Amino acid sequence: MSLIVQKFGGTSVANAECINAVADMVAKTHRQGDATVVVLSAMSGETNRLLALAREVNEQAPAREIDMLVSTGEQVTIALLAMALDERGISARSYTGGQVNILTDNIHGKARILEIDSARINKDLGAKRVVVVAGFQGIDREGDITTLGRGGSDITAVALAAALKADECRIYTDVDGVYTADPRIVPEAQRLEIITFEEMLELSSLGAKVLQTRSVEFAGKYRVPLRVLSTFKEGPGTLISYEEPVMEQPLISGIAGQTDDAKLTIRGIPDKPGIAHTVLAAIADTQINVDMIIQNVGADGTTDLTFTLSRHDLPQARAELDRLAAELGASEVIGDEHVAKISVVGVGMRSHSGVASTMFKSLAAEGINIQMISTSEIKISVVVEDKYLELAIRTLHKAFGLGDTMCSEDSTTDQE
Amino acid sequence: MSLIVQKFGGTSVANAECINAVADMVAKTHRQGDATVVVLSAMSGETNRLLALAREVNEQAPAREIDMLVSTGEQVTIALLAMALDERGISARSYTGGQVNILTDNIHGKARILEIDSARINKDLGAKRVVVVAGFQGIDREGDITTLGRGGSDITAVALAAALKADECRIYTDVDGVYTADPRIVPEAQRLEIITFEEMLELSSLGAKVLQTRSVEFAGKYRVPLRVLSTFKEGPGTLISYEEPVMEQPLISGIAGQTDDAKLTIRGIPDKPGIAHTVLAAIADTQINVDMIIQNVGADGTTDLTFTLSRHDLPQARAELDRLAAELGASEVIGDEHVAKISVVGVGMRSHSGVASTMFKSLAAEGINIQMISTSEIKISVVVEDKYLELAIRTLHKAFGLGDTMCSEDSTTDQE
Repeated sequence: MSLIVQKFGGTSVANAECINAVADMVAKTHRQGDATVVVLSAMSGETNRLLALAREVNEQAPAREIDMLVSTGEQVTIALLAMALDERGISARSYTGGQVNILTDNIHGKARILEIDSARINKDLGAKRVVVVAGFQGIDREGDITTLGRGGSDITAVALAAALKADECRIYTDVDGVYTADPRIVPEAQRLEIITFEEMLELSSLGAKVLQTRSVEFAGKYRVPLRVLSTFKEGPGTLISYEEPVMEQPLISGIAGQTDDAKLTIRGIPDKPGIAHTVLAAIADTQINVDMIIQNVGADGTTDLTFTLSRHDLPQARAELDRLAAELGASEVIGDEHVAKISVVGVGMRSHSGVASTMFKSLAAEGINIQMISTSEIKISVVVEDKYLELAIRTLHKAFGLGDTMCSEDSTTDQE
Repeated sequence: MSLIVQKFGGTSVANAECINAVADMVAKTHRQGDATVVVLSAMSGETNRLLALAREVNEQAPAREIDMLVSTGEQVTIALLAMALDERGISARSYTGGQVNILTDNIHGKARILEIDSARINKDLGAKRVVVVAGFQGIDREGDITTLGRGGSDITAVALAAALKADECRIYTDVDGVYTADPRIVPEAQRLEIITFEEMLELSSLGAKVLQTRSVEFAGKYRVPLRVLSTFKEGPGTLISYEEPVMEQPLISGIAGQTDDAKLTIRGIPDKPGIAHTVLAAIADTQINVDMIIQNVGADGTTDLTFTLSRHDLPQARAELDRLAAELGASEVIGDEHVAKISVVGVGMRSHSGVASTMFKSLAAEGINIQMISTSEIKISVVVEDKYLELAIRTLHKAFGLGDTMCSEDSTTDQE
């Protein structure tokens, strides 16, 4: 007998019909003999409905009361699912976050889980009951209701799986797994059977929408076996594993593209020690995060500094750099919104050389100019003009042989 | 400084606009320097919306899960009121029943309050915060959410007032107090400034819709000073007091009429000891409550037994009596839906004689035939044909001088 945590998001429990469908899936797991814990989000749209009510009485309502209000959303869905399971002859109990002692700090709206007391859940599982837990919520030491912020229900599921030492934590979403690239851009993209935790972490921070970075990090901390699969389409999904990659591990697992970045360059600043820090500290002081950074030394004792940042932050960062440019006597500040970041991710890079050269050669062959490069142990990212986004992803997908069937033994070396 | 508990029902918090109006009223009490605890129901219609969702997944959902579901209704309104108070510059905290330890038994859907731990509320009141508590709900010893059933929010308010030793518990409703009779029937009916607890108990069990019998009983047990007043119209309302009636106490405080009863007669049963018990036990076994009972002895060694019961229960009770009549050799069973019960209530009856004769004489003068009579220490009820309901109430209202201004010294003796 395995212990399985299943998490369903807001679109999966959007109405009574959806809840009945989820009940069928949970019933199936339970009838296979697995001990089953279910974590649910609120019905899609419900949180926004409640927040609109809040704004009618207070535009800046206290965070404690917002949490009290929106936490009712999951309480509704868990009760309904427990009822739907009962209708199917399956004994089930629903619990709020507080009732199963999901203890958090008291930072309302983005609380962090401190500990979970799994005694009550284990007692129910021992009695062959399905346990249905409200995602996204907990209580602080005062007994006040807290919420975990974006991706909170995923975190609840992962945290419960860790506390219960579950055999698997299954995150049901509207996609049926993690793909080698976005299938809307690359039709021949392949679903990955398995991906390493580190690759998943890179991919989710690179904008793959499947899982929030925070829940992947949390899973990694407790080595929770995590599987992403679809609510609407049967299939094995993608398993996130903590095993060391085996020999046949593909060189590259996936390619991610991101177009919500912008590039900012300050040119002709005096090339002296500490100048990069001067510029970047000024940006950091405005609470703006920068991503990739390049410094080019010029011939005339000056230097150019270029960095990428969220496109949303460009106007404010640019104003700050304009101010600084005047102060430092820099020659100009150039902002560019038309950039895209393309990343290839794979733990295979650690033991194989030549990934970067394959990447650069393939892009060059298509006439795509690389503006910036950044590398980590298992990731290479490049910045290109944004009109090349789809072409670059398709080119690299082909170059690294990701469209071939995954069981082909030499698929990872099929580079051209 | 007084400690005031204020309770607002579903129509008073039906939407954001109503909640803002309630916030204004609470703010006023708070600014007068009174320590303020507010108890709220769910928005009117919300409980039915949630129950309709439940029926979509399970026609006979477990009571535990129904309670989990419907208790979200008050959680929404308390959060919104706390926000609306914050908007008015008043520090407020909302609490679910569980958070302020409203401990109940585990009879889901009609739980009874066992105890309340008022420590947390007192701490907030000490810090000059308004405390907003979800009505209708509590938790059992397992930490499961329970609901108190019909009139549950009133009971929460009364129970909190008792636990906190409040100076007054104010129940805001859509009427502005307790009247000498239903003003829709008797336009000159007077609002009572004060009514004794026992009179209120009789009136509420006689169908005066102002307060549920259960909450009046609860208030009496702890001698909670209770005031009924209107959310929508300023005024002092009616105070329910525990004082012994003073000399000027009116003979009769109010007149109640009820048309949801029916009358059932079994005729010609053998007149032997225990026969009434045989008949009534058979009815009791079907879980039907009977109200007034009359037994008439006939001349031929038989007897007739008549009783009233809820009109809703008539078909089932009649079927049971038909079965019994055959068994006992009774001559016939007669059901009558066209009955009304009229009651006059007043603690003054204890010390004055002649109330019954005034009542019977006035009704006779209008040609209203009395079918059954039942008396208690502070109440006389009669059953009449239902078409006389309004006429009987108006006649008695006039006969006991209830339409006169209440401050008139000899109003209670103005009998004709």
